[in-house]
Amino acid sequence: MFQTHAWNNGYESAVSQITEIGREFYSRGWVLGTSGNFSAVLHREPLWLAITSTGSDKGHLLPQQILEIDETASVFRGEGRPSAETSLHFAIVRERTAGAVLHTHSVWSTVLSEQRASEGGISVEGYEMLKGLDGVSSHQHREWLPIVENSQDIEELARQISNTLKENPKVHGFLLRAHGLYTWGATIAEAKRHVEILEFLMETLVRTGSVAGPGRAGL
Amino acid sequence: MFQTHAWNNGYESAVSQITEIGREFYSRGWVLGTSGNFSAVLHREPLWLAITSTGSDKGHLLPQQILEIDETASVFRGEGRPSAETSLHFAIVRERTAGAVLHTHSVWSTVLSEQRASEGGISVEGYEMLKGLDGVSSHQHREWLPIVENSQDIEELARQISNTLKENPKVHGFLLRAHGLYTWGATIAEAKRHVEILEFLMETLVRTGSVAGPGRAGL
Amino acid sequence: MFQTHAWNNGYESAVSQITEIGREFYSRGWVLGTSGNFSAVLHREPLWLAITSTGSDKGHLLPQQILEIDETASVFRGEGRPSAETSLHFAIVRERTAGAVLHTHSVWSTVLSEQRASEGGISVEGYEMLKGLDGVSSHQHREWLPIVENSQDIEELARQISNTLKENPKVHGFLLRAHGLYTWGATIAEAKRHVEILEFLMETLVRTGSVAGPGRAGL
Amino acid sequence: MFQTHAWNNGYESAVSQITEIGREFYSRGWVLGTSGNFSAVLHREPLWLAITSTGSDKGHLLPQQILEIDETASVFRGEGRPSAETSLHFAIVRERTAGAVLHTHSVWSTVLSEQRASEGGISVEGYEMLKGLDGVSSHQHREWLPIVENSQDIEELARQISNTLKENPKVHGFLLRAHGLYTWGATIAEAKRHVEILEFLMETLVRTGSVAGPGRAGL
Repeated sequence: MFQTHAWNNGYESAVSQITEIGREFYSRGWVLGTSGNFSAVLHREPLWLAITSTGSDKGHLLPQQILEIDETASVFRGEGRPSAETSLHFAIVRERTAGAVLHTHSVWSTVLSEQRASEGGISVEGYEMLKGLDGVSSHQHREWLPIVENSQDIEELARQISNTLKENPKVHGFLLRAHGLYTWGATIAEAKRHVEILEFLMETLVRTGSVAGPGRAGL
Repeated sequence: MFQTHAWNNGYESAVSQITEIGREFYSRGWVLGTSGNFSAVLHREPLWLAITSTGSDKGHLLPQQILEIDETASVFRGEGRPSAETSLHFAIVRERTAGAVLHTHSVWSTVLSEQRASEGGISVEGYEMLKGLDGVSSHQHREWLPIVENSQDIEELARQISNTLKENPKVHGFLLRAHGLYTWGATIAEAKRHVEILEFLMETLVRTGSVAGPGRAGL
Repeated sequence: MFQTHAWNNGYESAVSQITEIGREFYSRGWVLGTSGNFSAVLHREPLWLAITSTGSDKGHLLPQQILEIDETASVFRGEGRPSAETSLHFAIVRERTAGAVLHTHSVWSTVLSEQRASEGGISVEGYEMLKGLDGVSSHQHREWLPIVENSQDIEELARQISNTLKENPKVHGFLLRAHGLYTWGATIAEAKRHVEILEFLMETLVRTGSVAGPGRAGL
Repeated sequence: MFQTHAWNNGYESAVSQITEIGREFYSRGWVLGTSGNFSAVLHREPLWLAITSTGSDKGHLLPQQILEIDETASVFRGEGRPSAETSLHFAIVRERTAGAVLHTHSVWSTVLSEQRASEGGISVEGYEMLKGLDGVSSHQHREWLPIVENSQDIEELARQISNTLKENPKVHGFLLRAHGLYTWGATIAEAKRHVEILEFLMETLVRTGSVAGPGRAGL
């Protein structure tokens, strides 16, 4: 169902995969209340994205709510306006040469990003689940998940995200404070896998009652 | 699936949307044991509602369990009696010119309304999810969620609700103590979105272990 | 889907309703690992039951796993042996003239029955959800949920249950310690409603971190 | 749906059962992010397994992602490479003459294996749910669930697992630290039942906030 090739197959495939991801994430409570947004790269140069429209119900996406846009965010297919956070998707795609960007808004990421805001991020280490992140080959890997202050000035936020990604070239995602998770992948399937892994780890950290990973037990 | 027009399309559309909402909310555990009730405005003057019948299983609603009633609560379509809380629906529709009213009964709202009863309500601030509420444009918005004492005298409770809504013209919902959430919207879709947002925020508050929102961290 | 008549419609209807209940309770995690068992009265005098077979997977019940038995537990329809706890079903049906008996085995009832075992039961008061229990008309009702010590001597346990029900003529269910909930109803639908209400209240009590109901806040 | 015969019916049956198990466990959050792996014995001497391929999405398994392999892990049917943890499956099948091996990776097992790592395992006693484990006839049974340190040296880990199983001939499963649960059964259905029981017990232990089982309340 989810394409595992290194490149997405175009608009129809992106629509089908994004719709299914919306349904699954909605059922898990990760994109309630029209929160969350998803994009996939359709063409690299010039850059074209498929991206969810603002205000759409991610659990019941209609094909026309997944828009085809160019790098000026002009809409060439679909109805409505692109996600209010489109600039963040562009920033990530450019910094990471990502093929897809997924933003979820779970209770776990909301709780955790608030609890750890003063430290600027969360260090996660020692969990086997980390091995599902692209390029990670051991549970002893230490992943840094930056927390960025939330803002309604999206252009300014996009610049901050670009800087955060430049300064942290190895991170697989970041949290917006009290706002949720952004992650990405070479394909939609990889981005979906990264969401599941990072959401799993955040739930684990909140339930453990400590953000110190298992490898840091002595600290 | 959920109509996003400013006006509901009549009884058949209301039945279809309310049935689907019942199924989804039931699967999330928000309307167990025949709890919860839903209504949609079919006509404004004179006022006609589609409303769930009392004692119906909200996860498995049959078309005849969604009644068409006039403002005296006389039943013109469907079987059984209208929800025991019909007066609350009328009170909300009149105070807010709402197009739909949804009442859920989740574990989270039950726990939270009990924990915070002595303060008369809950202040929520700093969460991006707040932006999904109608008319809210920043996460820095402070939402007040009043808690009203539960009562079996529904007419008296309806008068209290009317007063609470008059005194708090900007609230998007309220809690009945140990009883659950009422919220509304211009359309069924907007009311559904408000349920998801407020339920999300209540779960977040209970899991955080503190009802102080992120913007109030220093208090 | 669930029959609300005062009397079950016979074996085929019981099979259909019990299978659907199994699917729903399984999806909620209330009957994992072949735990739980369900019965419905097919005939009163002499007493005939439809009851799930021992070891059956309640989330994927096959018609032949719902047995028709007489009051000696002889099997007249279906395959396999009746639930190991058949005697408890007979005891409840006789003491309460119930039309259906449902036993769930959730994490919440397991945790709560252990935490409160030394007090012999749980007092629940002040919750609107209580009004869904047969005959309860106000949230101010105080429900007593007895906890009975678990035992592998089922005949002895059935006698204790009979005594508990005689001594507590108004209870709507009971817990077996570290084993789960038994409840019942005039119909399968009513028994299902009672399961959902009591499971909701137990989850609420565990999450609240206190078994004192809201009406007992000052105690 | 799940075969309860003492022997699996061959590759097609294994594919169908494993695919369905993947879907169910995925919906419960037990195999997120391509975590988890499943196998079933197709032939005993020489040993042939059906096993999930590495990196496959367990919630959406395609038939070709369930491989038929011999005891050298050579692939005779399906696409891709067998699970990176294939050696653990072989070790368990040989030590226990199991017909199926299932590995889940839940939040509960991750939290619990970390909390109790220094004790080398978890003692569980007094829960009725224990009776669903093969050969257990009373809730007073004391089950030992060993915790093995996680490692990326799979051959070394397989040897440790073999030793752990030899030293603990009665255990029904074990945890890899911060990595998840392994359990098995004579059939796929029995292994699935064991997963559900052990996951239920781990969730119960974490929620109880104490790993002391109910029978050990005085300790």
